[in-house]
Amino acid sequence: MAVHPSESPDQLEAISVNTLTAEGIAALDPETQDLVRRRQRAMGPGYRLSFSEPFQPVRALGTKIWDKNGDEYIDAYNNVPAVGHNHPTVVDAVCRQMAILNTNTRYLQADVIEFAEEFVATQTPEITSVMFTCTGSEANDLALRLARQVTGGTGVIVSEFAYHGNTRDVTEWSPSSGLKTARPPEICTVPAPDTFRIPDDERPEWFGAKVREAIATLQSRGIKPAAMVADSLFSSDGIFCDPRVLAPAVEAIHEAGGVFVADEVQSGFARTGETLWGYQRAGIVPDITTMGKSMGNGIPIGAMATQWDHIVNFAENVPYFNTYGGGNVAIAAARAVLQVIREENLLDNAADKGAQLATGIREILTSFGVPADVRSSGLYIGVEYVEDLQSKRPRPAMAQAVADGLKDRHIIISATSPYGDTLKIRPPLVVSQADVDRILAEFEAVTKELVG
Amino acid sequence: MAVHPSESPDQLEAISVNTLTAEGIAALDPETQDLVRRRQRAMGPGYRLSFSEPFQPVRALGTKIWDKNGDEYIDAYNNVPAVGHNHPTVVDAVCRQMAILNTNTRYLQADVIEFAEEFVATQTPEITSVMFTCTGSEANDLALRLARQVTGGTGVIVSEFAYHGNTRDVTEWSPSSGLKTARPPEICTVPAPDTFRIPDDERPEWFGAKVREAIATLQSRGIKPAAMVADSLFSSDGIFCDPRVLAPAVEAIHEAGGVFVADEVQSGFARTGETLWGYQRAGIVPDITTMGKSMGNGIPIGAMATQWDHIVNFAENVPYFNTYGGGNVAIAAARAVLQVIREENLLDNAADKGAQLATGIREILTSFGVPADVRSSGLYIGVEYVEDLQSKRPRPAMAQAVADGLKDRHIIISATSPYGDTLKIRPPLVVSQADVDRILAEFEAVTKELVG
Repeated sequence: MAVHPSESPDQLEAISVNTLTAEGIAALDPETQDLVRRRQRAMGPGYRLSFSEPFQPVRALGTKIWDKNGDEYIDAYNNVPAVGHNHPTVVDAVCRQMAILNTNTRYLQADVIEFAEEFVATQTPEITSVMFTCTGSEANDLALRLARQVTGGTGVIVSEFAYHGNTRDVTEWSPSSGLKTARPPEICTVPAPDTFRIPDDERPEWFGAKVREAIATLQSRGIKPAAMVADSLFSSDGIFCDPRVLAPAVEAIHEAGGVFVADEVQSGFARTGETLWGYQRAGIVPDITTMGKSMGNGIPIGAMATQWDHIVNFAENVPYFNTYGGGNVAIAAARAVLQVIREENLLDNAADKGAQLATGIREILTSFGVPADVRSSGLYIGVEYVEDLQSKRPRPAMAQAVADGLKDRHIIISATSPYGDTLKIRPPLVVSQADVDRILAEFEAVTKELVG
Repeated sequence: MAVHPSESPDQLEAISVNTLTAEGIAALDPETQDLVRRRQRAMGPGYRLSFSEPFQPVRALGTKIWDKNGDEYIDAYNNVPAVGHNHPTVVDAVCRQMAILNTNTRYLQADVIEFAEEFVATQTPEITSVMFTCTGSEANDLALRLARQVTGGTGVIVSEFAYHGNTRDVTEWSPSSGLKTARPPEICTVPAPDTFRIPDDERPEWFGAKVREAIATLQSRGIKPAAMVADSLFSSDGIFCDPRVLAPAVEAIHEAGGVFVADEVQSGFARTGETLWGYQRAGIVPDITTMGKSMGNGIPIGAMATQWDHIVNFAENVPYFNTYGGGNVAIAAARAVLQVIREENLLDNAADKGAQLATGIREILTSFGVPADVRSSGLYIGVEYVEDLQSKRPRPAMAQAVADGLKDRHIIISATSPYGDTLKIRPPLVVSQADVDRILAEFEAVTKELVG
């Protein structure tokens, strides 16, 4: 019989990167240790806490977040508050709507229809219709139901360390979810288009060939491919931003009778600094595209948008209702987010500040002779630490040390990749010049401290 | 190739009960017809609209909801705003929290831990821990992942017209979802414990035997049962509220090595007027219990609560993160809802007003000689119309006429059951004496109009 954590050694085990470990818990001050144990007891041991010592926020605004001691941090990680924590336009829109009406799509209401039209208009013209969900996981779950319905296939191709959500189905095709069970034969992975290791001029063709190999593997198992699903930044694989790899992948999956799903949960909402949606950066036409996280700046709303033929085919067989999806408050939040992105020119800000951060970090690492690869698209920045630039052997301890060190210096980031060797720097889109300067100054100080 | 609805006959098809049909659309005024077509185009034809003529709300408060013409309706259907539309305590809690902080469970925060403790304390003592999701669908999806993990089984037993959610997995074990594909062999159904057709003294034993038959069927297919999942009010099956049927079901599934999942999305949050959770009314100890809808009064939050051994077993194999689940704003909403339920004695109100409604409706139907069965638990009331009390043949046209007629008289309800012959009356828990009086008066008037 399992022993309760209040009476026993800790149950928590690090599976994710940048995560509090059992040893880490033992090293905490008694008050924090007690809170962690209460959390394990009341919420179970399945949740992970970031950092070697947990961050304890109590308040936030814009890019700032304050801990229980009143210390101010720059949030350079969280992409859910895309337009900044507690953005007044979003808070006002939500609070105004909460006092008016918050009901569902079983009734005929103009707001959700107008927003659906507005939302579809931001997409490539082939995307005609959007279905609202509550989360990105639900959107991806729905996308695969649609993909399987319209293709008659069941196979799914994803990158080796992809993450697309937490439902039972989506977890199966989210290799980074840490599931310890055998992968079903319907799921086949391709290596991520690693911009640090695959030569630039070979990469698109190489990736297209990998997708074709995966299709052939599925077919050899007697499985018809339904979809390839990709986050165009391959963020959990380590952040690889070469948009040229997507067109060959789309071509390959279409040839095999499957559809291409562009997962925009990470790359959407102007994050890349180039286009509102990541797939637009690649100039491709996805069959389906999915959104979540940033869509409501913290108010849950997700979406699956697709082409007319697909949605009609699907709807004929599958009635759909989502209690909260398309609810008035969620729609008010999502409208406010798009409005702020436009009004505050956040696409331009993501391009400008993202370039400054990437360039600055690259210069600092070079000046200290730290072997690393800095890659980015807009405000999605990856910094991969390696033993040396020849072997390119992952150096996860360095990434963890930098993440912890930056936290000590009041900058919140995290780490990613299968090896945990890659910093994930992804501040809200409203990050200011002063924020950028401070992030770079602290990054330099941490680097100096660790290697200087 | 599918034709766009703006250029063609309507794509919408009635699958659910109490739903706008293609013929219904053609009969609408041009302005409403235009809005419906815009909706079909922008959101696809998968969504259903309630009533023969859609309801167009623009504002709500408490139990009242106003349409675009400014006409006031009593909402006697929506259980998401459990404590009433736009309840000021919930709106204030959410708006206050939105201005302070809205982040996630990767950081250590007291509010979510305190609420988890408070939430677990409302459950049977065996339930020790809760994991937060965004929706009831996600909660049920997670519950089955857990059930399959801890039992090593895969089979699922549900009632014949159950509805438990909209993810790919949960849809498979939600027979009422209208999926037109073959049911997987892992899913086996039992007839609902029909209180109108199965004699009272035989019912618990009969239901236990049905569950045992389903277990045997699964086993004959070589499938080990993982779980029986039941909404203790069997609401989509037609609303059957005999709590005595659950204990034999729990015993049977336990004997077969499976777990019992009490889905409280419908029966939870004081709805039954007897206990906060429906399973408590039956005096059973579920292995897992799931919540959604009412939990945040419209702010998305769901939960899966379970016993310590189960959650430890699960967490060892499955790390879990839900972007919004356990977020500060959702937690603020959920705390406010529990606070209002206590402060306003809504359990007692549900018992009192529910009994008045059921008794009143029964008396009206009897006085007009309408063959029907009225059944209820607290503020969950079913009214099944039949041809006659001997044959008990379903009379769905009558249920649809009453739902439409009540809407014309500014009372919003809906219909349910596999035949669509059962009114579903389920007002917010704050329904007042004046509301009850008005609902009964309009119910009498509609009945008189239709049969008088």
